Amino acid sequence: MVVVMQEGATEEQIQRAISKLMDMGFDIHRSTGANHTVLGAVGAKRDFDTRDIELVEGVEEVLRISAPYKLASRAFRPEGSIVYLGPGVAVGGKQIVVMAGPCSVEGAEQIDTIASLLSTLGVRVLRGGAFKPRSSPYSFQGMGQQGLELMRSAADKYKMLVVSEVMDQTQIPMVLDYVDVVQVGARNMQNYNLLKELGKISKPVLLKRGISATLEELLLSAEYIMSGGNYNVVLCERGIRTFESYTRNTLDVSAIPVIQKISHLPIIADPSHGTGRRDKVPPMARASVAAGADGLLLEVHNDPEKALSDGAQSLYPAQFEKLMGELRMIAPAVGRTI
Amino acid sequence: MVVVMQEGATEEQIQRAISKLMDMGFDIHRSTGANHTVLGAVGAKRDFDTRDIELVEGVEEVLRISAPYKLASRAFRPEGSIVYLGPGVAVGGKQIVVMAGPCSVEGAEQIDTIASLLSTLGVRVLRGGAFKPRSSPYSFQGMGQQGLELMRSAADKYKMLVVSEVMDQTQIPMVLDYVDVVQVGARNMQNYNLLKELGKISKPVLLKRGISATLEELLLSAEYIMSGGNYNVVLCERGIRTFESYTRNTLDVSAIPVIQKISHLPIIADPSHGTGRRDKVPPMARASVAAGADGLLLEVHNDPEKALSDGAQSLYPAQFEKLMGELRMIAPAVGRTI
Amino acid sequence: MVVVMQEGATEEQIQRAISKLMDMGFDIHRSTGANHTVLGAVGAKRDFDTRDIELVEGVEEVLRISAPYKLASRAFRPEGSIVYLGPGVAVGGKQIVVMAGPCSVEGAEQIDTIASLLSTLGVRVLRGGAFKPRSSPYSFQGMGQQGLELMRSAADKYKMLVVSEVMDQTQIPMVLDYVDVVQVGARNMQNYNLLKELGKISKPVLLKRGISATLEELLLSAEYIMSGGNYNVVLCERGIRTFESYTRNTLDVSAIPVIQKISHLPIIADPSHGTGRRDKVPPMARASVAAGADGLLLEVHNDPEKALSDGAQSLYPAQFEKLMGELRMIAPAVGRTI
Amino acid sequence: MVVVMQEGATEEQIQRAISKLMDMGFDIHRSTGANHTVLGAVGAKRDFDTRDIELVEGVEEVLRISAPYKLASRAFRPEGSIVYLGPGVAVGGKQIVVMAGPCSVEGAEQIDTIASLLSTLGVRVLRGGAFKPRSSPYSFQGMGQQGLELMRSAADKYKMLVVSEVMDQTQIPMVLDYVDVVQVGARNMQNYNLLKELGKISKPVLLKRGISATLEELLLSAEYIMSGGNYNVVLCERGIRTFESYTRNTLDVSAIPVIQKISHLPIIADPSHGTGRRDKVPPMARASVAAGADGLLLEVHNDPEKALSDGAQSLYPAQFEKLMGELRMIAPAVGRTI
Repeated sequence: MVVVMQEGATEEQIQRAISKLMDMGFDIHRSTGANHTVLGAVGAKRDFDTRDIELVEGVEEVLRISAPYKLASRAFRPEGSIVYLGPGVAVGGKQIVVMAGPCSVEGAEQIDTIASLLSTLGVRVLRGGAFKPRSSPYSFQGMGQQGLELMRSAADKYKMLVVSEVMDQTQIPMVLDYVDVVQVGARNMQNYNLLKELGKISKPVLLKRGISATLEELLLSAEYIMSGGNYNVVLCERGIRTFESYTRNTLDVSAIPVIQKISHLPIIADPSHGTGRRDKVPPMARASVAAGADGLLLEVHNDPEKALSDGAQSLYPAQFEKLMGELRMIAPAVGRTI
Repeated sequence: MVVVMQEGATEEQIQRAISKLMDMGFDIHRSTGANHTVLGAVGAKRDFDTRDIELVEGVEEVLRISAPYKLASRAFRPEGSIVYLGPGVAVGGKQIVVMAGPCSVEGAEQIDTIASLLSTLGVRVLRGGAFKPRSSPYSFQGMGQQGLELMRSAADKYKMLVVSEVMDQTQIPMVLDYVDVVQVGARNMQNYNLLKELGKISKPVLLKRGISATLEELLLSAEYIMSGGNYNVVLCERGIRTFESYTRNTLDVSAIPVIQKISHLPIIADPSHGTGRRDKVPPMARASVAAGADGLLLEVHNDPEKALSDGAQSLYPAQFEKLMGELRMIAPAVGRTI
Repeated sequence: MVVVMQEGATEEQIQRAISKLMDMGFDIHRSTGANHTVLGAVGAKRDFDTRDIELVEGVEEVLRISAPYKLASRAFRPEGSIVYLGPGVAVGGKQIVVMAGPCSVEGAEQIDTIASLLSTLGVRVLRGGAFKPRSSPYSFQGMGQQGLELMRSAADKYKMLVVSEVMDQTQIPMVLDYVDVVQVGARNMQNYNLLKELGKISKPVLLKRGISATLEELLLSAEYIMSGGNYNVVLCERGIRTFESYTRNTLDVSAIPVIQKISHLPIIADPSHGTGRRDKVPPMARASVAAGADGLLLEVHNDPEKALSDGAQSLYPAQFEKLMGELRMIAPAVGRTI
Repeated sequence: MVVVMQEGATEEQIQRAISKLMDMGFDIHRSTGANHTVLGAVGAKRDFDTRDIELVEGVEEVLRISAPYKLASRAFRPEGSIVYLGPGVAVGGKQIVVMAGPCSVEGAEQIDTIASLLSTLGVRVLRGGAFKPRSSPYSFQGMGQQGLELMRSAADKYKMLVVSEVMDQTQIPMVLDYVDVVQVGARNMQNYNLLKELGKISKPVLLKRGISATLEELLLSAEYIMSGGNYNVVLCERGIRTFESYTRNTLDVSAIPVIQKISHLPIIADPSHGTGRRDKVPPMARASVAAGADGLLLEVHNDPEKALSDGAQSLYPAQFEKLMGELRMIAPAVGRTI
């Protein structure tokens, strides 16, 4: 931490800042300039609140040197991480991984139809919600465990992997019976008790960025999982809340190259939630791949008009097929395959 | 729902929109104007996704008529609600309720000192965290159940009530043994499994607005609790995330009069989290009362410099006492007492 | 406009709303449903304030049917507009137009070096600032008219067009002597006196989106120019202000497909200002093209380390050349050339 | 400026950063810690771009020590500024100054009626727009110079001062003939050519915060005026753009105490634009005064239903009178009179 004292800070104020820093466990390097005294505070502690020093009298500004996360930082694994999801499917390597499927599992026939279609188009990971966090208590809340059963059996039939959301830590053991990748939804990004429990499992976790989470907060949430021992974390940008309301959220495409610089974890994009409108999904899927995303999470439905949730942002099969063709043209421009 | 067709929408498109609406369970009133055909869709259903109609070809815009929440709406109880927290303490009436205490319970002596001090100044509700949701896994996570025990016994000694946070639904039964009011933190505002369980209890719930939640989303979360049968919900504005970073969050003072217009539920303000800086707490506490808040949630610590969490936003006892005096001058301007 | 009355609105309230609407010049279609009365207000007026009706007693909600802009709307020219910038250069057609150059013109040698380099790489439009709006009065404010002279002569030498910013309406006649395209900066997007004057010229205007402007506001600003008679408007997305501060702004890539749906005007992207960091420019330039942008505005400098302004977001020549190669691979995926 | 090098930065990288800093005109203090080397860069220059250093290889983070503004900073006048608007009216002292009037001047009778009414209630400053920046080119654009004449004569009749907006620098000489205080609207906060010209006059300037301007940007705009020699600047908080759309803008009440800490300039609040809805104006006016505002800017109309602009946010005379009574009760709590 670097602490800059105000112009004209008294020696007494400086001493008080120093002693506060030492109480916090830091070693101090003092440097006295013409106008400002600057204190370098060095120590092993990663957890402290810079505001504790900011409010000391005579202090002008405080700069945290080290990121508050460690295991999730690029420095921890400069070469980048590749997260294995299952046989032949890994995120973070040369191959861009497409995960697709309906918003909600709605029945055996529906999920089988979609899985069949997607596997034909080369999709290896089937997404689908069984437990649905909905803003309204009156909305369809998902099929629950039965939904997971149906998704697992469809995936097995077509040799696909399954990714599905877990809503709280009590569901983890049950959900693990069915899925290959456990998804943490945007609203749960800071459900710390859930994250801690996911740190104890070994299956990969798909961690979605909260709707108003900074990238630092996203990495701190990843750190919760990793500090428990589970390093298999895949991040997902899915749109942030801004003042613009034409699209449901604003997909922050720049989060992709930023995360790739500050973290070693793979990052994928979810343009379905990121835009909330079917006609905006293909351009934003293309943009995400062109920006370097390690994968995509896409909602596809055999009959979006009749979908029980989020039909408006689900692609028609023909749209999805066309999109896959476009993505195959773009991937080489970023040295990838799809 | 009102559906406005585009200028030049064909009769076929209009028929398709009508049949889609009828599939969704609505009765249709059609009105044909010079340029636009307008469809009024009437029905009992509160849960539908307006985007499903927005994407039908020929549709220009869709307006949802009824709010998506019902029990939380002003119309449900036009006279407003008064929520009883315990003997002699109710939120939503003439009396402005001040809830104060440390961010975290840190030990028997600390909580006793603070409770003693606050009760002398007329505070009837003691706040304090035992389970702390922290952005970093390396931060102090609270004393847990022992913290609740200490807070309960200090509160009993000084005839105060206790409000404290529950982090997930598994903690509810245990927490209920100690507290009078269960707090749901901002990060949990959309933890629906938690909200559903809180709908089954009878003790009052203090529901904090999420850092980027719209007021409609806040009321939908209240609706989750109320639709389970627990109508004792108190809302809390605690700052939203904006582009301005000088203060930690931006306390949305206008949320107070807005909520009072669209909902019958009482609303209090938390200027400690709303600003994140001790010196900004008194002005924003005064502003909240002047805007009509039904109560305040304030962090006060006997020794903020040594606080284990959020010391930077905790008031010194003398500051708090001075603030109470100012608030007593302001309350009559809004027809209240404090 | 559609006006929805509250449940239980009295006949008197309904009549008052109707007479208010008629005062505003609308014809009224009344439709009485089981719970709500809905008033359709039809009329030629494009300018009214929906809040005037919202506050009438008994009114629940108001929906504006027609967009507040007309000339800028897609409906005005469903086939889309192609804006000619100069001989052989048009925005909005099959060809993606790259405009590149330094942030500021700094001297004859600098601008000649850059123009020479860019023209070799196929760039036909030279950008460069002569009048610089800077947040600080102590920052370099640009070379002024002399900068325009230097840019013009470099552009002529290499057969390029010139785009440069005008800061207020008094500068228009002078600037027109030198440039082919007049740029309106983000901070001036709502400088209406400037926009009105630009409506009277015939040269194309490059209108940048304000840092917190909604897309509707951007189109209303275009409408100011177009309603004066100048239809040669090219829009530019250059990043919006959000809570995320890692990048200087958040480039709203989804604005590209949204604008293309609601307006006929071409839209280009400026990833240099949109990210503020050189290393994020190539991924976001690729993303913009993949999302369908009609062009790019890019800062390139022969020696960014020594640039007098915005060096941090200027590409090195080698980076720019590599990027052009990548863009040529992506363009066919969206049916374009570059 | 403090520059923190990355862990493991090479000596060569450190030397390159040092030489870059020296090129920028700084003296360097180097401090070598266990993990990080920290460079303190000291110098008189106030204008530099920290990104120039951030992108040097091996640099981890950069902290600007001194604020980029100087004349507007609290340090420049620790005792605070009082700005004299005219005989007996000063902002920044014990007296809270209320400026009130219609959004637009609409005619002789209207402005006379309102001025008469307000002066009776103790208002000494009459506000009113003659030149109106409107988002739509089809909206009423104000009466222009004639409006200023009418406002001046009404103000003289009732011994009031006049505050009115100037839209660009060409209007300054004419506007100065009529007004006592020149207002710069939110959309013009970064119209630097206008600000520079206002630096050359001596009449006070009311500078409104842009809808998405940080407080640092607001003070930099004040610095533009002050660096020209005009220190009579009054700041105005008028609502910022956030994700919440129930109110037109979110009045950032906390900006009041923040500005009072970091600047010596007086700050007033405009709850009319800050909320956009008449019924929210009184609570937010009370909140602003309770938070310590030096004044208020309020829209009042004798017949808001018929107002040519912003009627929805204009108070009825009776509402305004009631509000004044409430404010008189609150003012003593902050040691002020009204």
